[in-house]
Amino acid sequence: MNLFYYPGACSLADHIALIETGLSYRLTSIRHDKMTEDGRDFLSINPKGYIPTLELEDGTVLTENQTILNYIAERSGKLLPKDGIVRWRALEALAFMSSEIHSRYQPFFRDFPEPEKERAREKLAQAFAILAGQMGEKRFLVSDEMTIADCYLFWVLMVAPRSGVELPGALGGFLAHMRTLPSVTRALAEEGLG
Amino acid sequence: MNLFYYPGACSLADHIALIETGLSYRLTSIRHDKMTEDGRDFLSINPKGYIPTLELEDGTVLTENQTILNYIAERSGKLLPKDGIVRWRALEALAFMSSEIHSRYQPFFRDFPEPEKERAREKLAQAFAILAGQMGEKRFLVSDEMTIADCYLFWVLMVAPRSGVELPGALGGFLAHMRTLPSVTRALAEEGLG
Repeated sequence: MNLFYYPGACSLADHIALIETGLSYRLTSIRHDKMTEDGRDFLSINPKGYIPTLELEDGTVLTENQTILNYIAERSGKLLPKDGIVRWRALEALAFMSSEIHSRYQPFFRDFPEPEKERAREKLAQAFAILAGQMGEKRFLVSDEMTIADCYLFWVLMVAPRSGVELPGALGGFLAHMRTLPSVTRALAEEGLG
Repeated sequence: MNLFYYPGACSLADHIALIETGLSYRLTSIRHDKMTEDGRDFLSINPKGYIPTLELEDGTVLTENQTILNYIAERSGKLLPKDGIVRWRALEALAFMSSEIHSRYQPFFRDFPEPEKERAREKLAQAFAILAGQMGEKRFLVSDEMTIADCYLFWVLMVAPRSGVELPGALGGFLAHMRTLPSVTRALAEEGLG
């Protein structure tokens, strides 16, 4: 499998999941002019132009972070139980983080006017509080075992300082814990962020 | 199962899916003061306060539209193949519609300043074009058989006029086709929108 990524972008979640599950993968970075590092036009691979994008062995291209994480879990049989409440809580958390956190980072990533940033900060603080409450004393967000939700949560929290919103203690602790995991340190190193 | 909803809100997608799959369900509407029609504090059921919210027979509460649709499909064995590319295309489309369309409706639903609306319109037009291209000549978005992606797409398109963005022909045709289906007419009637 070939994961198209930008260093430190949300594709880091999928990168960590690939390492954790032991699936065989390679990485291809995208330049800002939307050419891949191996000289292909990225828009011809994924017309949406977004990373992460996952190219399978047969040439099939999957997009959307939640979907790629789910595919990695299903393909490997790891990081997401096949049934039971932990499965649904993990998928629910992915959807929540995508719409309530990731999308709220846009005003900071793209430098929108201050009122939009302020509105986003308020919503982000609420969302972080919900996740902190959900995590409680567990080692990971929805269970004491890692799920794909934690791979995405790590990225979401890693870039949170750009919003200026302070993380609740439980989430700061999670971030520090994740940074000690071999999969996370390897993924960061492979993206040149070690 | 008990689906918490507002008439005509995005919970309509789940309502249509429940009817299509033949699962047993009841509906509970939420008032604007966040009390349920049967007199409960909705925030004590789902602290996020969002619909759709699905209450299972054992009291478990599921949230997030994509997750509830996925659960309905998995529980019923309908509207989402267990494997194969149609599965991944349907899940991918749900994630795409959530982040690239549904979240872009906020400036219109909440009357944000005009520059934010204009920026959203541009992104919405791009997203609708991508979906129209994906649909092509098929009867539904990702296959000639209905999937949970179509339940959500119907709602997304039904409310599109509020954004002022015109729908490509393929999506207008899909919307008209969906309105003729018994599940859709029944869901609209049950929400008082018949």
